[in-house]
Amino acid sequence: MNFRTDLALERREYIDKHSIDGVISHKKTVSGITVDTITVTNSQGEKALGKPIGTYITVETVPFTNNSDLFSPSLYVLRDELKGLLPKGKGCVLVAGLGNEDITPDALGPRCISLLFATRHIPDELARDIGLSSLRPVAGIVPGVLGKTGMESSEIISGIAKKIEPSAVIVIDALAARSTERLGRTVQLSNTGISPGSGVGNHRQTINEETLGVPVIAIGVPTVVDGRTLAFDILEKAGVDESTIKSSDMKDSMMVTPKEVDALIERASRLIAMAINTALHPDMEGEDILAVVS
Amino acid sequence: MNFRTDLALERREYIDKHSIDGVISHKKTVSGITVDTITVTNSQGEKALGKPIGTYITVETVPFTNNSDLFSPSLYVLRDELKGLLPKGKGCVLVAGLGNEDITPDALGPRCISLLFATRHIPDELARDIGLSSLRPVAGIVPGVLGKTGMESSEIISGIAKKIEPSAVIVIDALAARSTERLGRTVQLSNTGISPGSGVGNHRQTINEETLGVPVIAIGVPTVVDGRTLAFDILEKAGVDESTIKSSDMKDSMMVTPKEVDALIERASRLIAMAINTALHPDMEGEDILAVVS
Amino acid sequence: MNFRTDLALERREYIDKHSIDGVISHKKTVSGITVDTITVTNSQGEKALGKPIGTYITVETVPFTNNSDLFSPSLYVLRDELKGLLPKGKGCVLVAGLGNEDITPDALGPRCISLLFATRHIPDELARDIGLSSLRPVAGIVPGVLGKTGMESSEIISGIAKKIEPSAVIVIDALAARSTERLGRTVQLSNTGISPGSGVGNHRQTINEETLGVPVIAIGVPTVVDGRTLAFDILEKAGVDESTIKSSDMKDSMMVTPKEVDALIERASRLIAMAINTALHPDMEGEDILAVVS
Amino acid sequence: MNFRTDLALERREYIDKHSIDGVISHKKTVSGITVDTITVTNSQGEKALGKPIGTYITVETVPFTNNSDLFSPSLYVLRDELKGLLPKGKGCVLVAGLGNEDITPDALGPRCISLLFATRHIPDELARDIGLSSLRPVAGIVPGVLGKTGMESSEIISGIAKKIEPSAVIVIDALAARSTERLGRTVQLSNTGISPGSGVGNHRQTINEETLGVPVIAIGVPTVVDGRTLAFDILEKAGVDESTIKSSDMKDSMMVTPKEVDALIERASRLIAMAINTALHPDMEGEDILAVVS
Repeated sequence: MNFRTDLALERREYIDKHSIDGVISHKKTVSGITVDTITVTNSQGEKALGKPIGTYITVETVPFTNNSDLFSPSLYVLRDELKGLLPKGKGCVLVAGLGNEDITPDALGPRCISLLFATRHIPDELARDIGLSSLRPVAGIVPGVLGKTGMESSEIISGIAKKIEPSAVIVIDALAARSTERLGRTVQLSNTGISPGSGVGNHRQTINEETLGVPVIAIGVPTVVDGRTLAFDILEKAGVDESTIKSSDMKDSMMVTPKEVDALIERASRLIAMAINTALHPDMEGEDILAVVS
Repeated sequence: MNFRTDLALERREYIDKHSIDGVISHKKTVSGITVDTITVTNSQGEKALGKPIGTYITVETVPFTNNSDLFSPSLYVLRDELKGLLPKGKGCVLVAGLGNEDITPDALGPRCISLLFATRHIPDELARDIGLSSLRPVAGIVPGVLGKTGMESSEIISGIAKKIEPSAVIVIDALAARSTERLGRTVQLSNTGISPGSGVGNHRQTINEETLGVPVIAIGVPTVVDGRTLAFDILEKAGVDESTIKSSDMKDSMMVTPKEVDALIERASRLIAMAINTALHPDMEGEDILAVVS
Repeated sequence: MNFRTDLALERREYIDKHSIDGVISHKKTVSGITVDTITVTNSQGEKALGKPIGTYITVETVPFTNNSDLFSPSLYVLRDELKGLLPKGKGCVLVAGLGNEDITPDALGPRCISLLFATRHIPDELARDIGLSSLRPVAGIVPGVLGKTGMESSEIISGIAKKIEPSAVIVIDALAARSTERLGRTVQLSNTGISPGSGVGNHRQTINEETLGVPVIAIGVPTVVDGRTLAFDILEKAGVDESTIKSSDMKDSMMVTPKEVDALIERASRLIAMAINTALHPDMEGEDILAVVS
Repeated sequence: MNFRTDLALERREYIDKHSIDGVISHKKTVSGITVDTITVTNSQGEKALGKPIGTYITVETVPFTNNSDLFSPSLYVLRDELKGLLPKGKGCVLVAGLGNEDITPDALGPRCISLLFATRHIPDELARDIGLSSLRPVAGIVPGVLGKTGMESSEIISGIAKKIEPSAVIVIDALAARSTERLGRTVQLSNTGISPGSGVGNHRQTINEETLGVPVIAIGVPTVVDGRTLAFDILEKAGVDESTIKSSDMKDSMMVTPKEVDALIERASRLIAMAINTALHPDMEGEDILAVVS
């Protein structure tokens, strides 16, 4: 592939011409929201799609830059898809917000954690004060970036996970897409964790059930297109032949983002944080959680 | 022109094939730093270059992302070129940092103001405490962005200028370049102020000597390439003919930045702020000013 | 007075023993919220209270640190009191957020502006898109602090006011209270503008109808107690006699804030910004405005 | 004790009337800087001082709010005292910056980490590029606050320490002092780690050699005085007798800070970060490290 994308959906489009053994697709519409589920079932599918065995759910929301209501169908569809990926029970969940707070399109993960309803430290007595028998324990961490911490996000998360023993881990990260049209209107959820080499930076090694010992749900929003990928895309659409493309200058160190990337990140963070909050605390009203975290 | 650039240098490259009446170019090397001066002398030059009559100085520094010493030739060359553009005397100077703090590549102006040595409020007695007879009065403002303030930067700056009556105004802004190679290694100074419609956003109307009544020096660093411009550039380099280019999808709402844009902005801001500080306070040591502002 | 306070209410308490000519008080309860209005009617009242002629409204809200709903009686009472102080009509309003963003208890003004619905730049056609014939023009400015800008907030605001000619100006600032019990549960509104020498810093000269030429509404929340004031308060309550107090070390350069000052500022900013937004845009739903600004 | 302080020095002052078994004091002056070392040698000393067995070094620097040169005697004295506390060798060091970034006086730890020269991820080949055979591996973490993460700082640090196995841990935190005169001019270093219940918040459980398995050096700067402590201090100095003091209102939820706390935190963070950086990388010039981290 002459491009880079973190979206299973975009990888499937590339290989879509004929059906592939080991890749099952399913599409549905819920409250006007398109939900596209790709399941990779064997190593043949893994190889074809370039993504590990597991489930990849793509939710196409209304563009995040719209001044739309937070408590919209997008939120509830996301919440329900996330619930479907989480293991049963009410065990502790560790949520990690990957990325670099100082680079706007990479700040998605850290911003989500700032809106997370962390509850692991709240005693049951306090929960009873607000009319609940107990609160599901939730913890949040912003691991930071390798250049600033000297540690991979995977090291920080696995160290903490060993200490607090969560029943599941959720990792949030900004993603790279192939197409600029997808930026700011897509959320990908998967149960395969996060593999290295994607997004804005390169701030991770594999974080998944194998490395952490518990289910790992990844939530991502495409916020950038790789400079090289955009260049390929433009040339391909213009009908330039492949050999010419290969020799061009490919803008390796560049990234492409919407000009309104700050508004996009702000709204995407609120949507994802609240989808997590409402999925983990089904007994609480969304408005009540929002009042606590903001 | 099928591209957008705020750099006079890049506009000249486009029309460079033959000499143009009204556009005078001069190139020199100072301490290993290339300084390219373009002077637009008449309306013919204005039309050819698409830039108003005046002087445009481009300083090619070492890449800002290098961990180089702040007190390097780049700083002193910039300082001296800025001095050459400033009116004589020791009158008050108002420095305005344009742009959006919340979008990393557009945060150059606001960051510079955070490192400005503002002195207009310091009485002469205090200046004498540090061994100077007086300090040149300097004021700084971050006008913010239209969407947040409801006002054009030009309105805010002209309102304040009328009130405090500076002898000159310096405006700092992030610029758009045509070529990704120029991002993070070029500073443009001019005595023509700033014209609308450039940079990351569209956060200004004309700010120049005509509108403010005093000389206006603009200092800019290219931090983005317009998505549409990049697309044209890529296609042109690949030899795609013009008619095909025009019909392509041109990524109007996208911008292209280096992946390390946060480090670039940080270092460019320090360099420009210190060039201004040392140009306006020639009696002080750079290190002493740096100690005050940081 | 051996203490410093920006609250008319606390000044009246000090002189409360007998009725004063020129100071009229009125207290009411609206939806469970106490609203205390002090009117200074002549120079005798001015002298007694140490506050200029005008109206001072103190709204005692539920503590800002409570996780209470934003759209509560507090919001609507504040909105209505603010409406009562604003001049009739739908002219442009300039809102200025005073204070220092880098010192938590002084960041109230800047935070409010970040949540202001600025509309002065929005054409009527866009307003019609959301079903309104027009939007009242609102502009917002964060003047910054003297040490960083070299300019008084009053200079910046009056320069801008002269340029954009608003029909009224609203200034928001953190206030100093005498009593720590008032921090985080009181909002003071007045039609007398802001006088120098209060709050956390000393970041202003007089900003009022006389200096700006249009009505100036001040909105403030006490977020600090002066170190010296606290010392006096403690000693007085302990029955220490006045001469001993005067000779003590009075902690002039210190300020006292609640330990949870960050949460207090966050919530107070949202409450005040939304009170302003809903007062200036009565045709819009509060929830719709909130969706736009956050 | 009727007050709260994190400074061993201030605890010793309280009990200073006669010599105590198990508490050894030593005072020296280096380059004009006072260095006061208290060693607690047995459980009797522990009980008398209320501090665990170990060494407490207090360095009295020039006030951090002075615009003094960073590369001053204060820096080198701090660096040398820190070197004395660190275990021999060139093993990995984990540096943790405790506290709440959103509350100015509590932001010391996080700010220090932003200026840390993290090197654990830098391969030896890169070190050789800058003329060194290798760089000592250094990692940094900002654990955040309990209310936002749901985890104690001690849990996060011990989880990470178990993962990356450092040879020593340095924890940085804002401290509470008894006396406002100490704010912004004192640094305390100790080899006893950090015990709960101090500083601005309550954001930690014990972090020491016993809990982490490696030496733990704590570095702290007093940035606040507890409201209750200030009240006691004021009353005691005014000669109020003890029984009266006990019944007064003691401002439990309040904290006292200098009005210029932002400048204090900024400068203290630079000083401490650079003391750590120069202690851990003795082969590098301070200026070169500063150029890398800022």
